[in-house]
Amino acid sequence: MIGYPTQKKPVKTTLPVNPGKRGQILEADLNQTNQVYLDRDRAVIHKKPTPITLVNVDYPSRSKAKITEAYFKTPSTTDYNGVYKGKAIDFEAKETANATSFSLSNVHPHQIEHLRQVFKHGAIAFLILRFSAKQETYLIPADVLLTFINASTRKSLPYAWVVANAHLIPYNYLVPVDYLSTLDSLYFKE
Amino acid sequence: MIGYPTQKKPVKTTLPVNPGKRGQILEADLNQTNQVYLDRDRAVIHKKPTPITLVNVDYPSRSKAKITEAYFKTPSTTDYNGVYKGKAIDFEAKETANATSFSLSNVHPHQIEHLRQVFKHGAIAFLILRFSAKQETYLIPADVLLTFINASTRKSLPYAWVVANAHLIPYNYLVPVDYLSTLDSLYFKE
Repeated sequence: MIGYPTQKKPVKTTLPVNPGKRGQILEADLNQTNQVYLDRDRAVIHKKPTPITLVNVDYPSRSKAKITEAYFKTPSTTDYNGVYKGKAIDFEAKETANATSFSLSNVHPHQIEHLRQVFKHGAIAFLILRFSAKQETYLIPADVLLTFINASTRKSLPYAWVVANAHLIPYNYLVPVDYLSTLDSLYFKE
Repeated sequence: MIGYPTQKKPVKTTLPVNPGKRGQILEADLNQTNQVYLDRDRAVIHKKPTPITLVNVDYPSRSKAKITEAYFKTPSTTDYNGVYKGKAIDFEAKETANATSFSLSNVHPHQIEHLRQVFKHGAIAFLILRFSAKQETYLIPADVLLTFINASTRKSLPYAWVVANAHLIPYNYLVPVDYLSTLDSLYFKE
């Protein structure tokens, strides 16, 4: 969505955005990472499809159903989940261009609640947060995030708080967001 | 999809079907079951959204993005997953009107492979199979299913084999497919 010069109101960040835009680079990096994990038989973690509400489906031929009207739905869960070393893995991934803080309005309340629930039931749950201006990607464990949200009236995560409380995820060319290494050091120490 | 009298070729069962038709009752029963599990804080298990390929999205107003062209994708994973007592849960659900067997062509090879992978990584993985004519719903553990597929040249699961090798899932009005009870007796005995 392009902000034309004639635009009068600011575009609200809670609008559904063009899937080709925001968050695309982190998503591509995570898709590649998860594919490498799958190929190397390390873990089975997938991005969930985007939830939509179907309104109309045409059948122009027997070989293909064509969706002609549908709308994006607010997600009720996080985007990524799967299994690693027998544990349920569940996380949301967000990217911000803001170098000093991350607005929590970018995470739906349903997703926060989902992280709380899966953490309570024993999943390894977390938020992956990238500060794109700094080229840094952090893993914030769900309990750390939820403690911040419960204790604070702030509606954003300051960058300094993230640096102090989260875990920098190593980057390498083949595995651009190597969050399993981070999980290994946090939860699977030998 | 209606079979008009003029129709010449049989409709192939691998075509995308009208989401309003096949499998709807089992899906509704599972949605209700999972909602009760969530409300009672027993488990967090969700159906994944149907995967689609977006081709065109219109923005008729700032408040709503309208998908005007999209297609169903072949799923690369199972439809349901989540967490129960710390374990990753992963399953596919199918319903058949055939009273004597279930054709394995109704499960995509990708989904079989996915069950194999998540089982290997420690998830509790299974197929939920309903014989709608008999009003019976079974839980088939992934290892039992995979052993059958590897050992047999049959392309269908005979009803008698299911009765002998799978586990009948209890029904009740509030929890129509109480598969956690079945998992408790299989994997969480005290």
